Amino acid sequence: MYNQSALKKIIDKALVNLAYNAEAEKLMEPVRYVLSMGGKRIRPVLALMTCNLFSDKIDDAVIPVTGLEIFHNFTLVHDDIMDQALMRRNMQTVHSKWNVNQAILSGDVMPFISYECLLQTPSQILSPVLKTFTRAAMDVCIGQQMDMDFEKSAVVTQDEYLRMIELKTAALIAASAKIGAIFGGAEEREIEILYEFGRNLGLAFQIQDDLLDVYGDVKTFGKISGGDIVADKKTFLFIKAMEIANTEQRKILKEQYTQQTQNAEDKIRIVTDIYNQLNIKSLTENIADDYINASLKFLEKVSVSQERKEELIQMTTSLAGRNH
Amino acid sequence: MYNQSALKKIIDKALVNLAYNAEAEKLMEPVRYVLSMGGKRIRPVLALMTCNLFSDKIDDAVIPVTGLEIFHNFTLVHDDIMDQALMRRNMQTVHSKWNVNQAILSGDVMPFISYECLLQTPSQILSPVLKTFTRAAMDVCIGQQMDMDFEKSAVVTQDEYLRMIELKTAALIAASAKIGAIFGGAEEREIEILYEFGRNLGLAFQIQDDLLDVYGDVKTFGKISGGDIVADKKTFLFIKAMEIANTEQRKILKEQYTQQTQNAEDKIRIVTDIYNQLNIKSLTENIADDYINASLKFLEKVSVSQERKEELIQMTTSLAGRNH
Repeated sequence: MYNQSALKKIIDKALVNLAYNAEAEKLMEPVRYVLSMGGKRIRPVLALMTCNLFSDKIDDAVIPVTGLEIFHNFTLVHDDIMDQALMRRNMQTVHSKWNVNQAILSGDVMPFISYECLLQTPSQILSPVLKTFTRAAMDVCIGQQMDMDFEKSAVVTQDEYLRMIELKTAALIAASAKIGAIFGGAEEREIEILYEFGRNLGLAFQIQDDLLDVYGDVKTFGKISGGDIVADKKTFLFIKAMEIANTEQRKILKEQYTQQTQNAEDKIRIVTDIYNQLNIKSLTENIADDYINASLKFLEKVSVSQERKEELIQMTTSLAGRNH
Repeated sequence: MYNQSALKKIIDKALVNLAYNAEAEKLMEPVRYVLSMGGKRIRPVLALMTCNLFSDKIDDAVIPVTGLEIFHNFTLVHDDIMDQALMRRNMQTVHSKWNVNQAILSGDVMPFISYECLLQTPSQILSPVLKTFTRAAMDVCIGQQMDMDFEKSAVVTQDEYLRMIELKTAALIAASAKIGAIFGGAEEREIEILYEFGRNLGLAFQIQDDLLDVYGDVKTFGKISGGDIVADKKTFLFIKAMEIANTEQRKILKEQYTQQTQNAEDKIRIVTDIYNQLNIKSLTENIADDYINASLKFLEKVSVSQERKEELIQMTTSLAGRNH
């Protein structure tokens, strides 16, 4: 069995070793840059872990699942253009380091690099692997559209928000868990269970991400705390707060999210004060915990020994451990 | 045997009948819009024709090759953003009708719709079909990068230009011809011949496109004549003219392509005058004809009856017939 950190090293190595056509150098430089920014490589690592649940042989899966990470980074490059975000993980975003056209085009090539990786899947499982990936890629785009539309909506309900992150974030994490299981040779029933495991994990993951923006710190999270508030992002915290706020609090939140000119620190403080008054932190933690528990329930249903599940259980529960 | 116009109808119908998730409506509206703009559907039609060379049964190929058209339209949506083009085929471009973010995102989903179509390929030929498509998609992106870089280059040679259009335009047309042959059950040798046929056809096609911008008319071409000149596009005509111009003519061409403020009609007239002095029209037609003849030579090598080749020959030679 491989542990998470060993798998991350395998993926990092595969990403560094990706060979590009010399003629494509200018196109690929931003691709290499964004892939070198780091990150937990959660999607391919998860896929290798679910593969490893069923099989000791993970080698065939390494290059194909690296495609999941490249696709994820493609979405970051284009989302950063749409959000006009200048920084990510304490580094300049691609469009701010180069320019918007370069970020569009270098982003555009990345899904095809993903498919080049995924096309190294053994032929007997090629079709289900590619169908799972392609479905997830479409879901991510649909989720990003909803996220964009929410910016202009006066009211977003908790259900609408959860559906948006299910598509934008959880679909690819679910697909990763499913693809790993397909590589591991799991049966149809187990493959679908692992999709559900991943879907719940992905929902928990995004809600935690929202939480960390306000209640994490720069060191562990790599971006300025409160960035979502400054960018008027309708996160789970904001939506929950709007739902349970009294008239006065709701008025202040609305004001803060529509005014353009106020000081960023003041804005973060005012919004966070209301979150604190409404106990949003623990309300959000509770929802995230519900999804973590749901994903663990799905994992229980998988017919492999407890020992083989250990690493996945640890990864899942560590999401709930909030050391900040 | 199917003729070109019957095949175009089959593709148009497949494009109209594409079913989208209701939840994705806002994302798909611009996709439907761009696909409804029309066009010759040259790539999927060509694929069905090369399939039909070898087989009377083309049904299995229809949905998969429709993916080629959707991919091509994706490149138009994103290229129009990068070029800041407001009109295409006498209609507003996606980013000018909606906005840049919407055009990025609706463009982003289109390759995945392409793959959804292509994933309906029968499993025994799935891998070669997807590999051919994915390689071409990467080539198109590399070609677009070169095209962008040429905008900033003082000098672009004819060879550099031909390599750029080989990647940006010919690679997908070549892949279309190859994919059709794979669907038709052609042997490896014939499949590669059809790739070369398509590559030469694609080169001729792009050079003709450059020619039509200056020497075509609005009705047959659907865009304002001279648009490439106004946009300072380094077309085959411009590059050839720069190569053979005398010092004075080269100075004028350079001036016209760097000045920002002059009147568009004056600019078109001044540049076209030099093209006429240098006989650029027939020089360009000769090069296009060379590629058309090369593609016909490859077609001759294909081991099927002359009768089966008739429609492809007609399509190829009609490219050379310049009725304007």
